[in-house]
Amino acid sequence: MGKGRLEAFSDGVLAIIITIMVLEMKVPHGETLEALLPLLPVFLSYVLSFIYVGIYWNNHHHMLQASQQVSGAMLWANLHLLFWLSLIPFVTGWMGENYFAAAPTALYGVILLMAAIAYWVLQRTTIGAQGPDSLLHTAVGRDLKGKISPVLYVIAIPSAFLSQWIAGGIYVLGALIWLVPDRRIEHVLRNQKT
Amino acid sequence: MGKGRLEAFSDGVLAIIITIMVLEMKVPHGETLEALLPLLPVFLSYVLSFIYVGIYWNNHHHMLQASQQVSGAMLWANLHLLFWLSLIPFVTGWMGENYFAAAPTALYGVILLMAAIAYWVLQRTTIGAQGPDSLLHTAVGRDLKGKISPVLYVIAIPSAFLSQWIAGGIYVLGALIWLVPDRRIEHVLRNQKT
Amino acid sequence: MGKGRLEAFSDGVLAIIITIMVLEMKVPHGETLEALLPLLPVFLSYVLSFIYVGIYWNNHHHMLQASQQVSGAMLWANLHLLFWLSLIPFVTGWMGENYFAAAPTALYGVILLMAAIAYWVLQRTTIGAQGPDSLLHTAVGRDLKGKISPVLYVIAIPSAFLSQWIAGGIYVLGALIWLVPDRRIEHVLRNQKT
Amino acid sequence: MGKGRLEAFSDGVLAIIITIMVLEMKVPHGETLEALLPLLPVFLSYVLSFIYVGIYWNNHHHMLQASQQVSGAMLWANLHLLFWLSLIPFVTGWMGENYFAAAPTALYGVILLMAAIAYWVLQRTTIGAQGPDSLLHTAVGRDLKGKISPVLYVIAIPSAFLSQWIAGGIYVLGALIWLVPDRRIEHVLRNQKT
Repeated sequence: MGKGRLEAFSDGVLAIIITIMVLEMKVPHGETLEALLPLLPVFLSYVLSFIYVGIYWNNHHHMLQASQQVSGAMLWANLHLLFWLSLIPFVTGWMGENYFAAAPTALYGVILLMAAIAYWVLQRTTIGAQGPDSLLHTAVGRDLKGKISPVLYVIAIPSAFLSQWIAGGIYVLGALIWLVPDRRIEHVLRNQKT
Repeated sequence: MGKGRLEAFSDGVLAIIITIMVLEMKVPHGETLEALLPLLPVFLSYVLSFIYVGIYWNNHHHMLQASQQVSGAMLWANLHLLFWLSLIPFVTGWMGENYFAAAPTALYGVILLMAAIAYWVLQRTTIGAQGPDSLLHTAVGRDLKGKISPVLYVIAIPSAFLSQWIAGGIYVLGALIWLVPDRRIEHVLRNQKT
Repeated sequence: MGKGRLEAFSDGVLAIIITIMVLEMKVPHGETLEALLPLLPVFLSYVLSFIYVGIYWNNHHHMLQASQQVSGAMLWANLHLLFWLSLIPFVTGWMGENYFAAAPTALYGVILLMAAIAYWVLQRTTIGAQGPDSLLHTAVGRDLKGKISPVLYVIAIPSAFLSQWIAGGIYVLGALIWLVPDRRIEHVLRNQKT
Repeated sequence: MGKGRLEAFSDGVLAIIITIMVLEMKVPHGETLEALLPLLPVFLSYVLSFIYVGIYWNNHHHMLQASQQVSGAMLWANLHLLFWLSLIPFVTGWMGENYFAAAPTALYGVILLMAAIAYWVLQRTTIGAQGPDSLLHTAVGRDLKGKISPVLYVIAIPSAFLSQWIAGGIYVLGALIWLVPDRRIEHVLRNQKT
C-alpha cells in the first residue's frame, strides 16, 4: 500500500489546522494600533501553536520518509493523531482570548499531551509495520525527546493553576527541544545512501 | 486517465470537512472549566463525525488502491459522495448545539444514509469501470457492511423521534462495524502480490 | 516545467471553495425541522454552486490531462480563473440569503460570466503552450459549449431584474449542458492510445 | 529527502490563505447593489492580497523547480515564510474594513516586509542546500527584484501615516514588478535542457 495518500491527507489536515487558527484572531473594529493590543495574547498563542503544528508536520515528514510500508493500523493511528491536533485551534483561541487563564492554559497542555501520546502510538505502529531491523527503528533509537515531552506537559498541566508563567514557559521549552528537525532520521537516511 | 487528481481532490475536500467541523465548537467566553460544559454535546457529535469522515477516507483510499481505471462517470459519482459528506459539518453542529434533539438527530441519519447510498453508487461505478473479473470486484465481494449500514440508518431516523439514545446508539454502532479498515481489499491486494 | 504543482494548487483552492460554501449555511438556533425552512434557498444555491465548481474541476482536470507543457502565462491564467471562482461562495451566500432577489441573482451571473471568460483565456493559453497540432487543440475543437455558456450568462444577468425564475432557470440550464464531462477530450485521449 | 511533501504542504497552506481571505468579505444583509458599496475597499484589498499570494506561490514554484536537495533548515525556513503569509488574511481584512486607514495600511506593509525577508531567507537556505555552482544560484543571480521589494515596503510603512494613497500605490507597484513570473529561472531551466 502506498504512503502517498497518507501523506497527502495529513498534509491537507495539518495545512488547514495551521491556517484556520489565524481566524481566531478576529479583525478588530478600531483602526488604531491600540485596537490591536487586546489581540496580543491571541497572537502569542497563535505563534506557539503554529510552531507546535510545524514541529508535528516536520517530524511526521521525517518518520514517513524513513518508512516503506503502510498498514491499516497506521491509517487509524494517523487519524487519531490528527484528531488531537485538530483541537489545537480551539484551545489556542480559548487560551489566547482569556489572557492565559488557568483552566484554558491547563487544557492546552492536555491537548499537547494527548497529541504527544498519539504521535508515540503512531510511531510504534509505523515501526511495527516496517518489520524488525527497519531503518526507522534504528533512526528513532531511544527517542529521548519523545519521552521527555509528555513528562513536561504532565508537569505543566497542574502548574497552570499555580502560575500561568510556569505552564507557558514549559510549553515554550517543550517546543524548543523539538525545533531542531529529527536529525537522527536525517542522519541514518544519509548514512544508508553511503 | 490517472487516478492521482481524483485522490488529491477528494483528500483535499475530506481534509477540509474533517477540520472545519471543529469551527462549530465556538470558543467559550468564560475562562473556567465549567464554561466548557455546554460544549460537551458539540464535542461528542464532533468525535462521532470525525470517525465517520475518517471511515469514508479509509474506505475511499482502499477502493481506489484496488482500481486502475478512472472513468468520467466515476468523477461525478465521487463529487456526489463529497456533496453529502460536505453537509456533515452542518448537521454535526445542529445536532450538537441542540443537545441531540429529535429533528437534528434524525437529519444526521438522513445525511449518513445519503452518503452511504452515494458511496455504494461510487463503488458500483468504480467496479464497472474496472471491467469484469477485476481485483476490486473480488475484494468487495458480497459487501455485507455496505448493505447493513443503510439499513441501520433507516431504522435510526424514525427512532430519533422516539428516543435520541436509540438513534445515537445506532450511529455509534454504524461507526463501530466500519472502524476496521476494509480488510477484504487489503487481503486480496496482498494475495495478488504473492 | 511540471504540471503537478499547478494541479495540486488548483485542487487545493477548488476543494476549499467547494467546502467553505457550506459555512454560509449557518446552523439554525431552533431544533425543529421548521427551523430549517429559511435555509432552503441557501441550500438550493449551495447545490447549484457545488455543481458549477464540480464542472470547473472536471473540465480543468480533462484540460490538463491532455496537456504536456506548462508555461508561466498558464500559471497566471490559472490564478485568474481561481480568483473568479473564489468569489462564488460570496455570491452564493448573498443570493441564497436574499431568496434569489434581483441584484444578487444578477451578480451571480456576472461571476459565472467572468469565470467562463477566465476559463476560455486559460484554455487559449494552454493550447498556445502545447504548440500547433497538439492533442488538446484537436480535443477542444470548435468548443461549442464554451461559446454557448457566456451567451447564456449575458442573457441571464439583465433578466434577473425581470424575473428571478428566468435567470435561475438559465443558470440551471448552463450547468446541465456541462454536466457531461468533456467527452471530446476523453475521446481523443482514448483514440491516441489506440 | 524529497521535495514533494514540502511542495504539497506549502500548496495546501497557500491555497487556504488565498481562499479564506474571501471569508472576510461578509455577505451583506441588504439585497440591493448599494449594499455592496461598503464592501468595495474590502474587495480591493482582497484583490491586492490575492495577487501577492499568487506571486509568492509562483516564485515558490519556480524556486523549488530549480532545486534538487531539501534540507531540514529549508523546512523551517519554509514554515517561517508560511507564518508571515498566514497573517495576510488578517491584515487584509483590517485594512479593507477600515477603508485603508493609516495604521492598518502600515501594518499591511510590515507583513509584506516580513514575508519578503522570510522569502529571502528561504532562498538563501535553498541555494545553500544545493551546493555551489547550482542551477538555482545561477538563476537567481543578482536578485534585483528581491532587493527592491523590501526597500519599497520600508518606504511605504511610514508613508501610510502621511497618505494612504502613497502607501497603497507602493504596494500596487511592489506587486507589478513581481507579476511577471521569475523568467530568470525559467530561462536557465530551458537553457540547461538544451
